[in-house]
Amino acid sequence: MAFELTKEYVERLSQAVELRDESTIRLELRDLFAADISVLLDELEGPEAHYILTLLDTETGAEILAEYDSDSRRELLTYFDSAEIARYVNILDSDDAVDLLKEQPVRIREEVIALIEDREQARFILDLLPYEPDTAGGLMQKELVKINVRQTVTECVEEIRRQAEDVEKVYTVYVVDDDQILLGIVSLKDIILAKRGSKIEQIYDDDVIYASTYDSAEDVAELMSRYDLDALPVVNVQKRLLGQITIDDVVDVITEQAQEDIAAITGVSEEVEEDDSVWKITRSRLPWLGIGMIGSLLAAKFLGIFEHDLLMMVPALALFIPIIGSTGGNVGIQSSSFMVQILSDKSALSGEFWPRMLKILTVAVLKGVLIAAFVFLITYLILSHPLKLSMVVSISLMAVVLLSSFTGTVTPIILNRYGINPSVASGPFITTANDFLGYSVYFGIAYLLYHYW
Amino acid sequence: MAFELTKEYVERLSQAVELRDESTIRLELRDLFAADISVLLDELEGPEAHYILTLLDTETGAEILAEYDSDSRRELLTYFDSAEIARYVNILDSDDAVDLLKEQPVRIREEVIALIEDREQARFILDLLPYEPDTAGGLMQKELVKINVRQTVTECVEEIRRQAEDVEKVYTVYVVDDDQILLGIVSLKDIILAKRGSKIEQIYDDDVIYASTYDSAEDVAELMSRYDLDALPVVNVQKRLLGQITIDDVVDVITEQAQEDIAAITGVSEEVEEDDSVWKITRSRLPWLGIGMIGSLLAAKFLGIFEHDLLMMVPALALFIPIIGSTGGNVGIQSSSFMVQILSDKSALSGEFWPRMLKILTVAVLKGVLIAAFVFLITYLILSHPLKLSMVVSISLMAVVLLSSFTGTVTPIILNRYGINPSVASGPFITTANDFLGYSVYFGIAYLLYHYW
Repeated sequence: MAFELTKEYVERLSQAVELRDESTIRLELRDLFAADISVLLDELEGPEAHYILTLLDTETGAEILAEYDSDSRRELLTYFDSAEIARYVNILDSDDAVDLLKEQPVRIREEVIALIEDREQARFILDLLPYEPDTAGGLMQKELVKINVRQTVTECVEEIRRQAEDVEKVYTVYVVDDDQILLGIVSLKDIILAKRGSKIEQIYDDDVIYASTYDSAEDVAELMSRYDLDALPVVNVQKRLLGQITIDDVVDVITEQAQEDIAAITGVSEEVEEDDSVWKITRSRLPWLGIGMIGSLLAAKFLGIFEHDLLMMVPALALFIPIIGSTGGNVGIQSSSFMVQILSDKSALSGEFWPRMLKILTVAVLKGVLIAAFVFLITYLILSHPLKLSMVVSISLMAVVLLSSFTGTVTPIILNRYGINPSVASGPFITTANDFLGYSVYFGIAYLLYHYW
Repeated sequence: MAFELTKEYVERLSQAVELRDESTIRLELRDLFAADISVLLDELEGPEAHYILTLLDTETGAEILAEYDSDSRRELLTYFDSAEIARYVNILDSDDAVDLLKEQPVRIREEVIALIEDREQARFILDLLPYEPDTAGGLMQKELVKINVRQTVTECVEEIRRQAEDVEKVYTVYVVDDDQILLGIVSLKDIILAKRGSKIEQIYDDDVIYASTYDSAEDVAELMSRYDLDALPVVNVQKRLLGQITIDDVVDVITEQAQEDIAAITGVSEEVEEDDSVWKITRSRLPWLGIGMIGSLLAAKFLGIFEHDLLMMVPALALFIPIIGSTGGNVGIQSSSFMVQILSDKSALSGEFWPRMLKILTVAVLKGVLIAAFVFLITYLILSHPLKLSMVVSISLMAVVLLSSFTGTVTPIILNRYGINPSVASGPFITTANDFLGYSVYFGIAYLLYHYW
């Protein structure tokens, strides 16, 4: 059922553009949705995509531009003059219009705003431009349907008729007083079900959930998904209704957050896509690898201290370097991802600090004891290593589990406090640091046991 | 603005339950939303939560139960008899009712269904029970508003009035023919804007996106977020309208998928929450750690082959075991997460197999050469290790980067083909396997260079 993009399709279209074959292009695109056309145009060269967009009516063009991802759109719009851009901006939803304009250089942005025909739209855009992108203010659109609390249902229907032309989808009707203060909401369903003569006062719901302009995008997403909302009104400090956030924008926020978390965990520093250049893909991965590399080289330097002493005396110590490293890494990642989960669950009961730490410590001790015992049995009884070596390995593992649990728990808390995505704590940087810590403990314990026992 | 749960609040409520103090309980809960009450009740003992639910009207109770997570709800409902459960199931949305019933033992499920008063609801439930939970059929609800294409807007409004009482939120009105075949949709906004006398035929939109009952939950989520849909109709093979999926359910699907991916990457095998027992939390982490442990012990056994030969001769070889392990792990995770991203992006142009592999290979070679050169310079020039050792390390790193890129690319493809979440490829199991592979290469190359050069 969903449209699937093929190479042949792109080539056919590209050829039609070259031949300036309008009718073929129109025919090919007739049955596609805007979201699909945007994916398709993104595969073409800028001038080709520009030509196709000029063939379509402005409304379809605006829908297509709204679906573009930010980088591709900035690139594409370099082929458009300000008057062309203004025609699209004129009819875009105000939130999409602002996103598009923010990608443009200041000069073009000003030109476009000056060329917008719809003066209300221009005012909307100027209202929205100052908000930070990752806040409720940055997500909201000015288009909404509102009604004065003293009106009747009949008047409300007239009002909706008048206002709804500008609003793509009507989710809820917001009820305000004479000062535009948000009092509540009334759903379209309630309006249809209500008797014509009844007053809004009698049917509206005053138990309304709203956001303030400065609330973070993350909090907005949490609020809307917790309360299953399709639209969320945004107000200022006086509770004056300023705009609304719709669920489709929040779905994008949730998807992006998940991608950011996974990028942080897997250590990819820059967003890349399959069709990016070989060099861009390589570059996006080098920073983390480089940090890991430097950490490991420091570890090599550090282990070098023991080369002529411990390692020559007991070469078998080298055999357990991998188990120390991987245990430290795995335990650290498990602890930090658990902590990240706790930090992100805002609806959970926030327990007190010390009982929580005690519990985490108990889990760590239990895990450490089980692992140390298991590995001791295997190394001593099955692999038949000497008692002393088996003890060094299992005591070190116990210590490594405790230490990694501690760093894995504390690092996300610290990162979170400084406004850094705590998922980074499961990423390669912290993992490398944990490994390093593990090797120090291992060789420290080995040194003690082989020299003083 | 959002409700925050505190320990004091829970204790106050628990005390009120003990005293059977109905008025306090009602007062405490009066201003809360169902989603908040469910979080609150989840902190109480089963019998306490049961008592509170019996104080609330059935509608509020049903809303609260719909917000519960599956495990807690199964546990809670053991304190309810079938007649009580049936009262809630009677008024729940059919999709929520089915989710709740599927958690129950078959005997209770049958009893409850027999006790449902609303016969249409019972029929809805029996219709929905057979669908797999992770499919469009498993996500859909039967409640929807539909209208025959031959009716007029005035009749449609009457029809909506009649049908909408059962439907929590009306997103769209579905247009069908006499055989209930889906023809298109018409939005509430269009109905309000249309002239009273006009026919549905004239105003409905026949460009409708729909799902089949057997489509996967993942595809449904992708479809709804790609096309910014609030509701998606579900049809059978004859395109007969069977139900609809609403956006709030899909937001849950998207959130769960992201959590599953992160759990797979970080190696947590069982879902745990902060208030689970110490033993449950420990247990959830042991399987992956155990596998890692066994892998590392095998590595120790394998490295043992070289103990008396290579390691005694060149103890410094041990110093670079960490860099081999961490590079293999990091490169593998980066490649696999890139592949997972490509596999999940269904709207992307699906390139051909060989050019794609060639590109991945080029990135791997470039990455390998850069890393090998960097590490060679550091070990030889700065750490002043012998030329032969520096060469062993950098050649091994080159080989490890190539191998890990390969396994990191191929493993997600294989997992995906066998229906396993490809994110597992970034998890501890594959990472341990990669480490193992890395050590073999390292000691293999060392053996060759030290013995035959």
